[in-house]
Amino acid sequence: MKTNTLSAILILSTSFLWAKEPPRIEKDLLGEKKIPADALYGVQTMRAVENFPISGDLISKHPNFIKGFAIVKLAAARANTDVGKMKPEVRDKIELAYKALMAGEYHDQFVVDMYQGGAGTSTNMNANEVMANIALLKSGHKIGEYSVVEPHDDLNMSQSTNDSYPSALKMAMILNNAEVLKELEALIASFRTLGNKYIDVLKMGRTELQDAVPMTVGQEFHAYATALQWEHDLLVAAEKHLYGMNMGATAIGTGLNTLPGYSEKCVKHMAELSGKKIYKLDDLIAGTWDMQSFLAYSSALKSLSVKLAKISSDLRILASGPRTGFYEINLPALQPGSSIMPGKVNPVIPELMSVISFRVMANDLAVTFAAENGDLQLNAFEPLIAISVFESQKILTSGLSTFRSKCIDGITINEQVLAMHIERSIGIVTALNPVVGYEKATELAKEALEQDKGILEIIREKKILSEEEIKKILDPATMTGLDKSKYPKK
Amino acid sequence: MKTNTLSAILILSTSFLWAKEPPRIEKDLLGEKKIPADALYGVQTMRAVENFPISGDLISKHPNFIKGFAIVKLAAARANTDVGKMKPEVRDKIELAYKALMAGEYHDQFVVDMYQGGAGTSTNMNANEVMANIALLKSGHKIGEYSVVEPHDDLNMSQSTNDSYPSALKMAMILNNAEVLKELEALIASFRTLGNKYIDVLKMGRTELQDAVPMTVGQEFHAYATALQWEHDLLVAAEKHLYGMNMGATAIGTGLNTLPGYSEKCVKHMAELSGKKIYKLDDLIAGTWDMQSFLAYSSALKSLSVKLAKISSDLRILASGPRTGFYEINLPALQPGSSIMPGKVNPVIPELMSVISFRVMANDLAVTFAAENGDLQLNAFEPLIAISVFESQKILTSGLSTFRSKCIDGITINEQVLAMHIERSIGIVTALNPVVGYEKATELAKEALEQDKGILEIIREKKILSEEEIKKILDPATMTGLDKSKYPKK
Amino acid sequence: MKTNTLSAILILSTSFLWAKEPPRIEKDLLGEKKIPADALYGVQTMRAVENFPISGDLISKHPNFIKGFAIVKLAAARANTDVGKMKPEVRDKIELAYKALMAGEYHDQFVVDMYQGGAGTSTNMNANEVMANIALLKSGHKIGEYSVVEPHDDLNMSQSTNDSYPSALKMAMILNNAEVLKELEALIASFRTLGNKYIDVLKMGRTELQDAVPMTVGQEFHAYATALQWEHDLLVAAEKHLYGMNMGATAIGTGLNTLPGYSEKCVKHMAELSGKKIYKLDDLIAGTWDMQSFLAYSSALKSLSVKLAKISSDLRILASGPRTGFYEINLPALQPGSSIMPGKVNPVIPELMSVISFRVMANDLAVTFAAENGDLQLNAFEPLIAISVFESQKILTSGLSTFRSKCIDGITINEQVLAMHIERSIGIVTALNPVVGYEKATELAKEALEQDKGILEIIREKKILSEEEIKKILDPATMTGLDKSKYPKK
Amino acid sequence: MKTNTLSAILILSTSFLWAKEPPRIEKDLLGEKKIPADALYGVQTMRAVENFPISGDLISKHPNFIKGFAIVKLAAARANTDVGKMKPEVRDKIELAYKALMAGEYHDQFVVDMYQGGAGTSTNMNANEVMANIALLKSGHKIGEYSVVEPHDDLNMSQSTNDSYPSALKMAMILNNAEVLKELEALIASFRTLGNKYIDVLKMGRTELQDAVPMTVGQEFHAYATALQWEHDLLVAAEKHLYGMNMGATAIGTGLNTLPGYSEKCVKHMAELSGKKIYKLDDLIAGTWDMQSFLAYSSALKSLSVKLAKISSDLRILASGPRTGFYEINLPALQPGSSIMPGKVNPVIPELMSVISFRVMANDLAVTFAAENGDLQLNAFEPLIAISVFESQKILTSGLSTFRSKCIDGITINEQVLAMHIERSIGIVTALNPVVGYEKATELAKEALEQDKGILEIIREKKILSEEEIKKILDPATMTGLDKSKYPKK
Repeated sequence: MKTNTLSAILILSTSFLWAKEPPRIEKDLLGEKKIPADALYGVQTMRAVENFPISGDLISKHPNFIKGFAIVKLAAARANTDVGKMKPEVRDKIELAYKALMAGEYHDQFVVDMYQGGAGTSTNMNANEVMANIALLKSGHKIGEYSVVEPHDDLNMSQSTNDSYPSALKMAMILNNAEVLKELEALIASFRTLGNKYIDVLKMGRTELQDAVPMTVGQEFHAYATALQWEHDLLVAAEKHLYGMNMGATAIGTGLNTLPGYSEKCVKHMAELSGKKIYKLDDLIAGTWDMQSFLAYSSALKSLSVKLAKISSDLRILASGPRTGFYEINLPALQPGSSIMPGKVNPVIPELMSVISFRVMANDLAVTFAAENGDLQLNAFEPLIAISVFESQKILTSGLSTFRSKCIDGITINEQVLAMHIERSIGIVTALNPVVGYEKATELAKEALEQDKGILEIIREKKILSEEEIKKILDPATMTGLDKSKYPKK
Repeated sequence: MKTNTLSAILILSTSFLWAKEPPRIEKDLLGEKKIPADALYGVQTMRAVENFPISGDLISKHPNFIKGFAIVKLAAARANTDVGKMKPEVRDKIELAYKALMAGEYHDQFVVDMYQGGAGTSTNMNANEVMANIALLKSGHKIGEYSVVEPHDDLNMSQSTNDSYPSALKMAMILNNAEVLKELEALIASFRTLGNKYIDVLKMGRTELQDAVPMTVGQEFHAYATALQWEHDLLVAAEKHLYGMNMGATAIGTGLNTLPGYSEKCVKHMAELSGKKIYKLDDLIAGTWDMQSFLAYSSALKSLSVKLAKISSDLRILASGPRTGFYEINLPALQPGSSIMPGKVNPVIPELMSVISFRVMANDLAVTFAAENGDLQLNAFEPLIAISVFESQKILTSGLSTFRSKCIDGITINEQVLAMHIERSIGIVTALNPVVGYEKATELAKEALEQDKGILEIIREKKILSEEEIKKILDPATMTGLDKSKYPKK
Repeated sequence: MKTNTLSAILILSTSFLWAKEPPRIEKDLLGEKKIPADALYGVQTMRAVENFPISGDLISKHPNFIKGFAIVKLAAARANTDVGKMKPEVRDKIELAYKALMAGEYHDQFVVDMYQGGAGTSTNMNANEVMANIALLKSGHKIGEYSVVEPHDDLNMSQSTNDSYPSALKMAMILNNAEVLKELEALIASFRTLGNKYIDVLKMGRTELQDAVPMTVGQEFHAYATALQWEHDLLVAAEKHLYGMNMGATAIGTGLNTLPGYSEKCVKHMAELSGKKIYKLDDLIAGTWDMQSFLAYSSALKSLSVKLAKISSDLRILASGPRTGFYEINLPALQPGSSIMPGKVNPVIPELMSVISFRVMANDLAVTFAAENGDLQLNAFEPLIAISVFESQKILTSGLSTFRSKCIDGITINEQVLAMHIERSIGIVTALNPVVGYEKATELAKEALEQDKGILEIIREKKILSEEEIKKILDPATMTGLDKSKYPKK
Repeated sequence: MKTNTLSAILILSTSFLWAKEPPRIEKDLLGEKKIPADALYGVQTMRAVENFPISGDLISKHPNFIKGFAIVKLAAARANTDVGKMKPEVRDKIELAYKALMAGEYHDQFVVDMYQGGAGTSTNMNANEVMANIALLKSGHKIGEYSVVEPHDDLNMSQSTNDSYPSALKMAMILNNAEVLKELEALIASFRTLGNKYIDVLKMGRTELQDAVPMTVGQEFHAYATALQWEHDLLVAAEKHLYGMNMGATAIGTGLNTLPGYSEKCVKHMAELSGKKIYKLDDLIAGTWDMQSFLAYSSALKSLSVKLAKISSDLRILASGPRTGFYEINLPALQPGSSIMPGKVNPVIPELMSVISFRVMANDLAVTFAAENGDLQLNAFEPLIAISVFESQKILTSGLSTFRSKCIDGITINEQVLAMHIERSIGIVTALNPVVGYEKATELAKEALEQDKGILEIIREKKILSEEEIKKILDPATMTGLDKSKYPKK
């Protein structure tokens, strides 16, 4: 809570660095500033650290954002060299910085808070300064030897924050999305496994929480898998919205200060570096203020989280009990539930999944607020989009992994309960229609209701059908239209 | 869907009127317009009807909004007379219009769509024009005889839309709130009745949908009553935020064109007319752009709807079954649930209550968007606040009434199921601690779990306790800390 | 506000009908009910009218929803006939009902409130009953002669509310979407017209509301067109999510009570009737509870509304003034702004567009709540999705039309102001770099700032450049990278 | 992004600890676990660390949450001693732990992720285990010597997570709220200072972004102060919703396992320890599942953030320019705006404030989702409420501080621009009505519009009024109804 604490930590860390050797001096339009001697960031980063001591959620915690910038900056350097604006040797030095960041080096130098004004300028400057200094270090120069590689003139050449920040942001989300998709695929596979395992086990389906008609446990789990697969498809499609890049737009989309061909070459290099079908937006002026791509991707994350919340809720209902609930499935016991109530095991992981899902749903609203409030040629609230989407991607990735490994993979079923529910249910009377006739069926249903008995109980009592006939009627395929062939085997 | 249809209807209705006698002509700064001969509205209303053919949700559907304007306009007329700006005979004519509107007359003359730009100007003008013409008609003059009572100069005297619209809006919400509160009180009383009726019936409580420890059915219903009472308290407190009025602010809160004392007298008259503790905001400039009062009231509606959604969901869970769910309570059967599934009764009213609740929760977001987007000295999005809060109040009022009369009042319980759940539960072992000792209790719990038996079953089998002892332990007061004295009798 | 009023109206209207001839009697599982003699609806509709007196937003106000049901019911009848379950003569009678509803006849018979529990059962029953009676009337039979065409057995054959309601809902949204798209296309065309008209007029671009670099007015308007085109593309793509139908799922997706081939034939008939690429969902169990398709479509509506709110806000800023604001463009004057302030013209239509946009954004949250709360095999909150998406589509359709015809088409620009802004701006110094050199440019910028002058003013004073040179530098193509060839001519 | 990284860090940190001396062994119902030798947490915390590797947002980052638990646990210990259940010497040892935590010691031992299922059980257990071990250490015992002070039996005595977690949460929010209020008060004071400084400087007010009528700069700033004061009042009132505590409820609110009087004494001790008017909820069963208090407090945070977003937006509009915008005020320059555009200074701090505000508004939705989804006797989603409200409080506290110190305190005004706007405006014609007559005024207004002149310009040209008369009319008090006496001097 205390901002003092945060400031204190920042001061501490820098004074620690300063203890070693005297700080270097850097300056910008607003004047000079002391920079810790071995810091790879520079004056603009330093100002941003002072201006935005908000959350402690630093850029350094978002490695794919840093990689996004690495890709953007190298692609720009290559394109600038292609059109004759940058010397090949500068580009090659920048490539060294790219490689270091992609390898996870120096991420701790991204010290600016994710919460910031200025439409991301401070983040872009942090990237420019750190990459310039890495380029210098890796090519045998000294930190701050900017005559060789300059943070702004070289790293930001033919760029503005207004095109490089959103482009790096999109790249970061694309990289993060791969992690979400991977975990989602694993979860789907786990549900398929459950689906196949219990494909023949009959259970009662419920609509509006009232007994409906029979299905199999496998069908239920496969439906979760399919519905999640639909989310997978949606996320894959939504990712494509992030492929349209702003590079070449500079300040407002008119491409001021870029040479012909730069923009096209830059996105081509981004495509090569990322292996994704990156393209140039067909209207860079619109692209500079328009947030549709982020909104579309965020909507897909929301859709996934709505699905996960629903499935988590279902699992809690199906596992309710053990004595006074549905008790059809068992979730793995991960921790003692309560010491007041011995033996109580709570559905902590589905609850966690819901907590995460609700959070993602709310993050979509944050993205909406940001997207809706931009004025004229630029949307200054892109940092909020970064904060919110990155958080959603992070907690979904870890959450999906936890949900699968600590819950879904350990689900077992209570066959006796499931069978009893079928036996005692009235809904299966529907399936008897063809055998005993509609009128007789209705009569049996009425009798069952009045005597608090199951339909099968009555049929057995009255010996209306033999056990063999009952078995045939209760055949999952007959009752549930089960078609095993349509489900993936894995 | 078709805007054409809407336009067609409007054209039709006016041409119908025009058939009778030739239209009258009115004019404003933008020129002349034909007005149906017996229409009580005038030129500005006519323009608004043409400009905003959006939703078909006309002001006329919101009687308390019309009454809110009646109160505002009469209070202003009285205050203007008090400070010597308006002749008493004009005020008295305006009072005739006030009385007619309060009696529900002429509401059909409020023909402007609730969806509008202009911060409510068109609604204010509709009120001015209609009230002027009612005043004329009721005092023996002709429609349009504006030399006697003028829509703008008299009805809008010392006012601007920017103070009269939000003031009328607040008054409307106050009036609507009385209807919400009345229905909420009735619902609370119904839950108290259920609570008292079943105060001694034991049941298992559940946390995280897992069996927990015992309580009584009455405690559960009383808790709903209490939690709704908390919402009642919140709504009553939130209503007070609506008492701070803007009258006297005129265009931007500086009170331009008002005489000293007018503002204070105006709110005094509003207080008298409404019987509410209406006061003047302590900073009318802030009050002109600030939407806090609406936001605070909308938050309270949201809070109520969150509660109702939760209770509705609980009722669906408790009524789930009949054979494969909790089946502890029965909701009244209102309509056949399904013809495929004979005997199925669905919880349609709790579902309806949830539908309404979710809608109200979303309306709060609409209010938030409106409140957040105002620029400088005025918030132009007050009409959206009106649309959203009025809808919430309307569907909550009818929804609460339906929820109570068609669902809550008809709830019955399944004592056998409730008793069986207690018998079979393991959670009640906690209550045996003092009698059999903690170690023995734990041993029994373990045995119950392993053998799929209830604790009481085992105790009876092993004759650990006599039936009398069991009865004593199962005494609601002992097990549940029940204190009947704390609940209202009604 | 008064539910009493609503009830009164309903009672009034039915008693009116009852006056003419004695009511007929219909019955269902819960007993008998009187039905107005010439009502085409039946007992279940009657119950629903009594059970859900909530909002007055009746199904009859949503013609495309009625058409959606007409398509679903005829497609089902045809498929049932194809598989030999329905007699061709019954199907042909149902086709008569289909044709009547598609022609807009009898829509007033859809008297159930859109707010309802039961997952849409009452709406489905209203459709079944009305279509049965239309079929009877149109084929020379009497109302209620159900031995010829039966509301449930025939109209609902091989169906459940749980598959026909969402399928009709999707079809309705598809039909509504065509109207939204049509209006959106017209708006885009209007922005293109403005873009082409002012393609060469220079103006200052602004980022973070601070002067940035030049662009043309045409580029700005074309960017709105492009950004809206992106929304058009998104809506077209989102519509495809609605093509996956549930027909054949019946109660929970297992297809109970359907014959082989029925499901496939039914969606084929829907495709033929609608001309859309309707297909059968690949997992009908998932499809019965999953709301992704609605959520995806609602997200696209939200995205469009975010865009429209942003554009509306921009227009208000650009038209601010006339004396103390940006005053670069003029919006058409539609109504007197204020009588206190003569000559004041307010941006009422962009404000209206924002009101509508915020409402749509909030409706997306209602859809989210509905989607997230479904339990097990069915989502009971589909009626809220219908209410919210239909409202969004309706107000967007009428709003887009109004926005275009009453605002965008009448926009004019203030060339003098635009030119003055360019003249006085400092940002264009950037364009002088190549001519006067970077150092000189910086010096000039500094001087301009200190002396409160424009860059061009100083250049002219100092005769640094000739008027011809200035003209060349200010050439839109040079300054703004303008490429006219890339914009559509229309 | 990588969960692997997070796990790696956790493994690393623990292995680091393990390097020093062999781990100790603790066990619970699920079995044994190794615990780092000098860790103050125990087996249940260890399980939670493994179960919830989600976000890296650990409890340790929320010092007031830890203090909230310290207060709850000491209050419970004292109440248990009061009713004779706990020995005074155990209570006294617990008090040592309380003191340590209140002094900020050992907070790093709260290692569980804020994201968790189980309704907060893991957080409560982390608190129990750490406090037990601190109590042991501080009283000369060894870590893990639980026979002296036991994490569960002593620290959780007469408690359940279900009452202690929400109670600690409320206490934490109360403590955090003090920090929000303090910063809010400082911001209000800064606006008051600006208000007083510029109380006489005339400016044009604007409604719907169109020129309206005059006011003073001081009135505008004071209105911000007043409107923020209203938020302060709301937050103070909302805090009171957090005073109603759950202590004594235990598992479901029935108070199982508590002695008479314990509950009352416990809240009395909480009141003493916190200095707040803590009371016992009047229905602990409702209080266990009801989230109203959190929702009410979150609504107040949302309301504040809506206000801050609006003010931030206003400041950006008022500071727009310098050459093509309003340019009435100057915000302090904190960092170079753009290197492409020399001299550009962007409103980064108001943008930051908006970013923060939007985030808080979205967090309120997360709270809403959590509140709405609880089932039956407990709401399992309280951890999400903690995450969301704590984040809002944190970023508001640091954001308000930054907003004030780096922006508001440095605001200056451009008197020439303000005066020119008044001179050229047409709106001031309203003030001339009493002097030149309404007709003449209208004529002048028309002339001004047509000739693109200001009203005063024309008056001077035509010598209608002397300079002295003009000065008198332009007197702020006359034009704006200014009453300086009503504003606080500080």
